[in-house]
Amino acid sequence: MSKRILVDCHTHIYTKRLVSLLRSRTVNPRIHTNSPDGSEKLAILPQEVSGGRTVGPQYWDVRNKVSFMNRHSIDVSIVSLANPWLDFLDAPQAVTSAHECNADLEQYCSEASQLFASAQESGAVEAGRRMKAFGIMPLAEGVDPEHVVESLGTIAKSPSLCGAILGSRGLGKGLDDPALEPVWAKAAELGLVLFLHPHYGVGADASQPSGLWGSQDNGHVLPLALGFPFETAAATTRLILAGVFDRHPTLRLLVAHSGGALPILSSRLASCVAHDPHVCNRLQHDPRYYLGKIYYDAVAYGPEELEAVAKIIGRAERYKSGNKGQVEDVVERGTGRMMFGTDHPFFPPTKEDGTVITDDQTETWRSVTENLEAIDEVPSWTKEAKSGVFGLNAVKLFGL
Amino acid sequence: MSKRILVDCHTHIYTKRLVSLLRSRTVNPRIHTNSPDGSEKLAILPQEVSGGRTVGPQYWDVRNKVSFMNRHSIDVSIVSLANPWLDFLDAPQAVTSAHECNADLEQYCSEASQLFASAQESGAVEAGRRMKAFGIMPLAEGVDPEHVVESLGTIAKSPSLCGAILGSRGLGKGLDDPALEPVWAKAAELGLVLFLHPHYGVGADASQPSGLWGSQDNGHVLPLALGFPFETAAATTRLILAGVFDRHPTLRLLVAHSGGALPILSSRLASCVAHDPHVCNRLQHDPRYYLGKIYYDAVAYGPEELEAVAKIIGRAERYKSGNKGQVEDVVERGTGRMMFGTDHPFFPPTKEDGTVITDDQTETWRSVTENLEAIDEVPSWTKEAKSGVFGLNAVKLFGL
Repeated sequence: MSKRILVDCHTHIYTKRLVSLLRSRTVNPRIHTNSPDGSEKLAILPQEVSGGRTVGPQYWDVRNKVSFMNRHSIDVSIVSLANPWLDFLDAPQAVTSAHECNADLEQYCSEASQLFASAQESGAVEAGRRMKAFGIMPLAEGVDPEHVVESLGTIAKSPSLCGAILGSRGLGKGLDDPALEPVWAKAAELGLVLFLHPHYGVGADASQPSGLWGSQDNGHVLPLALGFPFETAAATTRLILAGVFDRHPTLRLLVAHSGGALPILSSRLASCVAHDPHVCNRLQHDPRYYLGKIYYDAVAYGPEELEAVAKIIGRAERYKSGNKGQVEDVVERGTGRMMFGTDHPFFPPTKEDGTVITDDQTETWRSVTENLEAIDEVPSWTKEAKSGVFGLNAVKLFGL
Repeated sequence: MSKRILVDCHTHIYTKRLVSLLRSRTVNPRIHTNSPDGSEKLAILPQEVSGGRTVGPQYWDVRNKVSFMNRHSIDVSIVSLANPWLDFLDAPQAVTSAHECNADLEQYCSEASQLFASAQESGAVEAGRRMKAFGIMPLAEGVDPEHVVESLGTIAKSPSLCGAILGSRGLGKGLDDPALEPVWAKAAELGLVLFLHPHYGVGADASQPSGLWGSQDNGHVLPLALGFPFETAAATTRLILAGVFDRHPTLRLLVAHSGGALPILSSRLASCVAHDPHVCNRLQHDPRYYLGKIYYDAVAYGPEELEAVAKIIGRAERYKSGNKGQVEDVVERGTGRMMFGTDHPFFPPTKEDGTVITDDQTETWRSVTENLEAIDEVPSWTKEAKSGVFGLNAVKLFGL
């Protein structure tokens, strides 16, 4: 295989300052050492019954990320804070912490540059390795949207920051909150990519007596495999239904986990919209049109899934109001909006019994090779389409 | 186009006896006339804030269903009770009501036969029209599983009943409840098709302050377009993770709305399972294998969605333990398990402002033509594959 450019657009860290803050807390989200083996655990959600997940330097040490990149031939990583971001802070804390995080993320990228430079000098890695980052906005309950808009200005001026990650809650009312209008306007104006990522899932469903996930012990499988992509689909759909893409057609939204459950449900969504008097005449286009305005990571773990997502993005123009007939270049239109990601440091290698190999720094990760192979194995994608998804689409989108 | 056999495997009714019961109730689920225009409304869920949906004879009158079938050239309909089935009844009521419903469903099919016979005599429709039905099991909290097993015996003996519809709650603890083991065993033994259908959705999510659907007025779009298929995906996944298909490999499960959100998330599910010590060594096969053991309606409203689902079903054999290499006949394997449905009497025609045309008996329904066209427009499906999905797969599965 000829040398390909590999860009990881979905890879997480916590800043050291955020780790200290999480360690200092006595309620979730927090990092604690109350586990049987005394290891540090991150307990994220208020209702988290398990002790949380084991955390270590792979979550904050830049050397660990660089080692991971080198091992998997990743040329550029665009790191983003892992959830829960700043959702749990009060408004003034969130504003201060966003400033600090953005400075710390810039610093993290700069440290990585030094590591790459010395590795390149010694001939250990090829030239061109780079670390970039999504910044963070002070999205928490009670924050003045003006502060959020300001943070986008700061991010735009930071050399290593090329967008911002965000969850589904916004200022507490979700992303269809009209108060967020100036935020979408500013992000579109600055050309910053907003990376929508799940956090809450849908695990605490009161409509079912044993919850949506039931009482059998399935570890974290159900909230992680299903709850996360459900949340993403709901948040993205609410953005579409709120007309955000009609008012801000140049907004650059990147959606985690290949759009979650939304692509496969988008024709059902269109049918439900067409049959509902509350919504049917609200949008400028069929809802499926807007899926072609969005960017998607390629973190779906299977070639059939990736192929389906690309086709559903690629067909979007068919659903532009007034459009008749077929759309050309469906594959290119679709794959052109998808980009590789790893979700590092989550889904680390495991032993045979499934327990995590903590702070691994030597293995090739199955979760990474699965996503690489999935891209490589889509039968209908051309070599050019695959190169785009591996890295060139991200180079273009983020101006790398 | 040559004459095709069209079988509708997803079409609902309420029995008249069930309608009377719902009219007599003062708490949801119930049918009431407290609407501004005095029309009858069905309010289904406890937390239902809107008055509910308008109901009329299209929900219980066999002549209406027959007219709908004739108008859309549907040869055979396999009707099923619409949600909430018997979930809301106490145990003895549920057992009695299941008996009554199964008798009433048999009677409904027999009345349809008479209508078809006279329409055929007068030359109004071609020969071969038939009404069949899914029966109902007494699935409600506190019911002895033995009664559920008995109901399957009754259904197997009823000439017009060829399976049973079920929701996601089972006996109150979901479908991964070990108490349901004898039910799966009996259904598999009798070769009855179990039709898994959503009801609760995921609307009442306590983990987000404004709920998963937020506070903007989107009518029923979000719970219907997303909440329903989320619920189906969760229920099906819980069945898989509980090992039900390992223990009952001949179980015939038909899943509503083309499997909901599950197919597109199945490789993510497999990755989450492989990385979770609680589950990774539990099942005989990769979770994706089990998607090839399931049947799916083709109620997904778009060709790209249907194509994706078929490919994900069709690839399943690749994930059988010990299997190496590629699987042949992916399209046939996939499409062979999918079958047309309408979801009648839901998604009726609407006026320009989106309001429902109540008790329509003349229009061609957009929701039906969308699903017919979606099947017809899948580029990679052969004519034989399409004939299968239109009707021949159902003829085979249900022994029509």
